[in-house]
Parts: sequence; structure tokens; C-alpha cells
Amino acid sequence: MKLNEIGFVRGGYTTRKEAPRQGFHDDRLFTLEIKEEYKQAALEIKVGDLIQVVYFANEADRTALRTKPPKKEGKYGVFSTRSPHRPNPINICIARVEEVNDNIMVSGLDALDGSPIIDIKGYSQRLHDNLIAKYAIK
Amino acid sequence: MKLNEIGFVRGGYTTRKEAPRQGFHDDRLFTLEIKEEYKQAALEIKVGDLIQVVYFANEADRTALRTKPPKKEGKYGVFSTRSPHRPNPINICIARVEEVNDNIMVSGLDALDGSPIIDIKGYSQRLHDNLIAKYAIK
Repeated sequence: MKLNEIGFVRGGYTTRKEAPRQGFHDDRLFTLEIKEEYKQAALEIKVGDLIQVVYFANEADRTALRTKPPKKEGKYGVFSTRSPHRPNPINICIARVEEVNDNIMVSGLDALDGSPIIDIKGYSQRLHDNLIAKYAIK
Repeated sequence: MKLNEIGFVRGGYTTRKEAPRQGFHDDRLFTLEIKEEYKQAALEIKVGDLIQVVYFANEADRTALRTKPPKKEGKYGVFSTRSPHRPNPINICIARVEEVNDNIMVSGLDALDGSPIIDIKGYSQRLHDNLIAKYAIK
């Protein structure tokens, strides 16, 4: 499968070490710079929206299959974890739109500077709550 | 960016029309068939876990930039929606693990049969709640 980035994250962390474990632990502002040819797909994104940002972690180790999670003993398969190191290093963050001008400014990412953006999706907390409620009943 | 599927969804819907709008609206059981070379990355996935399944919607229209959401008037940019039709048709579902044998059986997907699986991540409801709580305060 071949993906073409729809834009790039600007103002991201310069090193993995600098990035927080979870994007929302930090108030940093990131710019989602959308390529000209995709801008009409982002026109309705507005301040206050929660969006799901999907980006490519191009510095990740794609050979990683087992990893030691920060707060656990021993190694776990990467598919049980949220480690950025995995065969297809696609990271998914829920971000909050803080400002919209020619680009989109968000908080809540954990991306390195220049990370290619793969996709942006609307996010509905209500839908999510319905899903979790259904699973909780089981 | 080039992705190599880590496996395939078996037992999925045969047509897009048959698929529910949200995976959790249906109790269908899907099999995540993980390729041999990636199985050690999935060893700790167990019954009852919530996981985030990332798959490729290979029948999607990748030229779609504007779309009419089912319950809304007029067209919206696809990056404000969760339409499967988008430049990089990566779908993300939270699924529940129902059975584990040589493969992993889950509910909660909305995938067509044979969809390539790109990634699986652990999912923490607690982390999610912390994130939403932080955004709600703003």
C-alpha cells in the first residue's frame, strides 16, 4: 500500500526524548500544514473541534516486534502497546483545534517536527461513549 | 510511504452497503489473521482487551475530498468526517477481543472481507478519559 502525505506537522518536537509520553501531557502548539491540493478537504475544521490526526513516525524502528513498556516488567508484543516502534509506524492522536488560519493549529500531538500527516478525521466523543458503554455491558 | 500489511481481516462484510455505519452497531465476529512473521508482536493480546485496529479500506475512493455526511445537509471536507472515502483510506476502529486461538477474533469492526490490517495498538480507556477531561476544562 502506498500513501501520499496530505501535509506535514510543523513545530513538533526535535527529538523523540523531548516528546511527552502522551501528546495531551503538554500544551505545545503544532501546525498542521495541509498541502494546497488537499485544502478543500479541511475547510470545515474549526476552533474547538476534536480531530483524530494520523501521522507517520518516520524515525521509528520498523523491525520492532517486542518492546518493554515504560511502566511494566518484561517485554510485550508491540501490538499490545502504543510504542511508536512497530512495522507500520502510524501514530494516532486526538488533538484539539486551537486556531485556524491558512493552516490548522492544534494541541495534543506527540509528533516530531516534519512528520508526514497521513489523514485527519472528525472525532465524536458521543459516538465513542456509546461504543464504550456497549463494551462495558458485556 | 510504503506499508506492508501485517495480516488480513477475515469474515468481514462483502459489500460496503452491508457494513453498519459504526462497527459497534453490529455483533459480527471478525478474525484478525496475523501473518506468521508478525505473530510474536501479538502474543499478549487476550480476551476482553480493547484494541485499536488500523486497516486499509482498499475499495475506497481516494480522489474524494468533499462528501455529504449521512445526517447532514450539504457537503463537508472529508477531513471533518469519518467517511471511508479519503486520500489515504486508513480506517481506525476500537474492537473488543472475543476469542484468541491461532488468530484473534474481535467484534466492533466495520471492515470489508479481506481488508489488509496495517496495525494493532493497545487501547486504554483511562488514558482516553484523562485526555477528554483535560480538553473539557479548556
